[in-house]
Amino acid sequence: MVQSQADYSHRQARLTTALNNYEQLDAIALNAGPSLTYLTGLEFHLSERPVVGLFAPDTSPVIILPALEAGKLLNLSYPVQHFVYGEDPDKWGLTFREGLQATRLSDKRVGIEPGQIRFLEMSLLEGASSTTKFIPGDALMAELRMVKDEVELSNMRAAVTVAQNTLNSIMPAINPGLSERELAAEITAGLLQSGSDSQLPFAPLVASGPNSANPHAFPGERRLAEGDLLILDWGANIGGYFSDLTRTFAVGKPEDEMRHIAQIVLEANAAAREVAGPGIPAEAVDRAARKVIEAAGFGEYFIHRTGHGLGLESHEAPYIREGNSLELVPGMTFTIEPGIYIQGRGGVRIEDDVVITNDGLESFSDLPRELRILGD
Amino acid sequence: MVQSQADYSHRQARLTTALNNYEQLDAIALNAGPSLTYLTGLEFHLSERPVVGLFAPDTSPVIILPALEAGKLLNLSYPVQHFVYGEDPDKWGLTFREGLQATRLSDKRVGIEPGQIRFLEMSLLEGASSTTKFIPGDALMAELRMVKDEVELSNMRAAVTVAQNTLNSIMPAINPGLSERELAAEITAGLLQSGSDSQLPFAPLVASGPNSANPHAFPGERRLAEGDLLILDWGANIGGYFSDLTRTFAVGKPEDEMRHIAQIVLEANAAAREVAGPGIPAEAVDRAARKVIEAAGFGEYFIHRTGHGLGLESHEAPYIREGNSLELVPGMTFTIEPGIYIQGRGGVRIEDDVVITNDGLESFSDLPRELRILGD
Repeated sequence: MVQSQADYSHRQARLTTALNNYEQLDAIALNAGPSLTYLTGLEFHLSERPVVGLFAPDTSPVIILPALEAGKLLNLSYPVQHFVYGEDPDKWGLTFREGLQATRLSDKRVGIEPGQIRFLEMSLLEGASSTTKFIPGDALMAELRMVKDEVELSNMRAAVTVAQNTLNSIMPAINPGLSERELAAEITAGLLQSGSDSQLPFAPLVASGPNSANPHAFPGERRLAEGDLLILDWGANIGGYFSDLTRTFAVGKPEDEMRHIAQIVLEANAAAREVAGPGIPAEAVDRAARKVIEAAGFGEYFIHRTGHGLGLESHEAPYIREGNSLELVPGMTFTIEPGIYIQGRGGVRIEDDVVITNDGLESFSDLPRELRILGD
Repeated sequence: MVQSQADYSHRQARLTTALNNYEQLDAIALNAGPSLTYLTGLEFHLSERPVVGLFAPDTSPVIILPALEAGKLLNLSYPVQHFVYGEDPDKWGLTFREGLQATRLSDKRVGIEPGQIRFLEMSLLEGASSTTKFIPGDALMAELRMVKDEVELSNMRAAVTVAQNTLNSIMPAINPGLSERELAAEITAGLLQSGSDSQLPFAPLVASGPNSANPHAFPGERRLAEGDLLILDWGANIGGYFSDLTRTFAVGKPEDEMRHIAQIVLEANAAAREVAGPGIPAEAVDRAARKVIEAAGFGEYFIHRTGHGLGLESHEAPYIREGNSLELVPGMTFTIEPGIYIQGRGGVRIEDDVVITNDGLESFSDLPRELRILGD
């Protein structure tokens, strides 16, 4: 589904309301990235040519961008002021000064997203107005984006369906002798053939044998072998919204201990899905999964949080971790992905994409979660 | 080809030499990204969990990273000191402080890459040592990376071959009625089937009809129609090194003016390839292309620089633009991609990937550059 143009004006109005209610910030500055797309519907690559959107109550949004991207601002349904620059970086400062003047941000506190905005944009912004104060505003943007609307949810559902169909279609190709790299290419091609947008949320992870003990291993030349555990972590993009799934397989007969940890992770995944619901703090979901793994004696091998928010980004708020007391509310979408990783041996992770509903949780994903033994 | 582990020690030694020769900087701080990979061979996703490498003469490199990524540091062939943190962002500052202490960077000037490092890493670095000065050091890193070695060049050559094979394999599928999005998916799948690594340099651009007048259009639902100009901009990844090609097609018989601009862009591309060589300033290559287009009366429609460096990044130094007096030297790799874009009508761009040789220039790419008329 496609967001209606009116949704962007609506989101900008919600930002204005949030800024008016929030004493710490007068405006928001966003570089090329998901929050800028969320508010404007515009897509820009993050590149050496900075793009910045400035959002302040009482003025229409300001977009500072390279001249060669200005065509993207034609036919917008809401007003913008735009300021373009050419190919000489020495002149970009002037354009940024004009943009900041148009939003009257001197002496104001402007929120930025620390995980998105770079030194490049920061130095241009700070150089353009020495009296403007730039401070973290990611919590405010996360608050706007965390609860998904119907269009967003339908895109995420579709992204999960595409990812699940992809796995089902490539299952017959997973055989001993195939390299991790080859399998990753199969998954990528399958995602596109199944209908994902070209810009995948992330390159699929394929980790086999001892590599499966490394949660963020990149696919390499290692070939699948009998007795391997095999972790696949992949996702699709529909209309800019992502899925992010993980399933673990055994190539031929697994060792008993590997079978055992797979069973524990399965129970941890179920426990987290069981406890999550409206009004529950994010950390309680992490605790539910962790408790199962700790009770089985593998606590030290569960080396990451239980999950992360999912939407326009493959990792976003809410983070499902100890110390995050944020209460979950209906419409929040995130992953549940406990894992156990034993160095030199292998690892297991089971990841679902879920949404908080009025009375609990719905999992978008329903692929079998049990350790599937290939070639059985 | 795969870089030998010894190459990384060698690159770190070259950085040390450069830092010792360069008065403005005492050390370099890099976040997850191509320069960190260049120096260490390590790959990390850019995510909400910061990874920073600190490189200072007289100490071994320091890597600050999340505990769940520490497995990547096993079996390195060079010494590193590493400092890991857990899932609670409030505690990351402590780990950064330990890392900075290990490199003895207080009162030192540390170079950063403004286009890579984010507010997230900067605030952790600045919070860890109030007496360290962080200043742009991208020119130094670019100097190390611009001239490619034999392994790098062979990967880039292979990446061009894969991209060219992909185009040849999907040509029969390009027909009226196909949507931009569908064609982009065909190209992506073709790149992977032809042997590209999963992590493509960028999602292929497909811009048809009036969309071709927008150099950075994202592929949409528009369907190819008779009379369209069609710009394809795509690239492959081999061993982390990228290709980046563009060709323009006509779907059926093009208008005479479109045929005319295609001819001018063809001549501009040739003029730039002709003039480029060792000792020639980057801006002279830009001028050579621009002169052809201006002489034909289309100067105002050539709205971007003539090219950009290519390698571990799809855009890197050297930038082929007016004002860049950098002298080209053998081993530098970049694109040559003049274009003409007429709003509401259509655009033409012809992009090659080239390397400076001892006596001129070699183009890795040799696909036909003439406007190819599909269905002719």
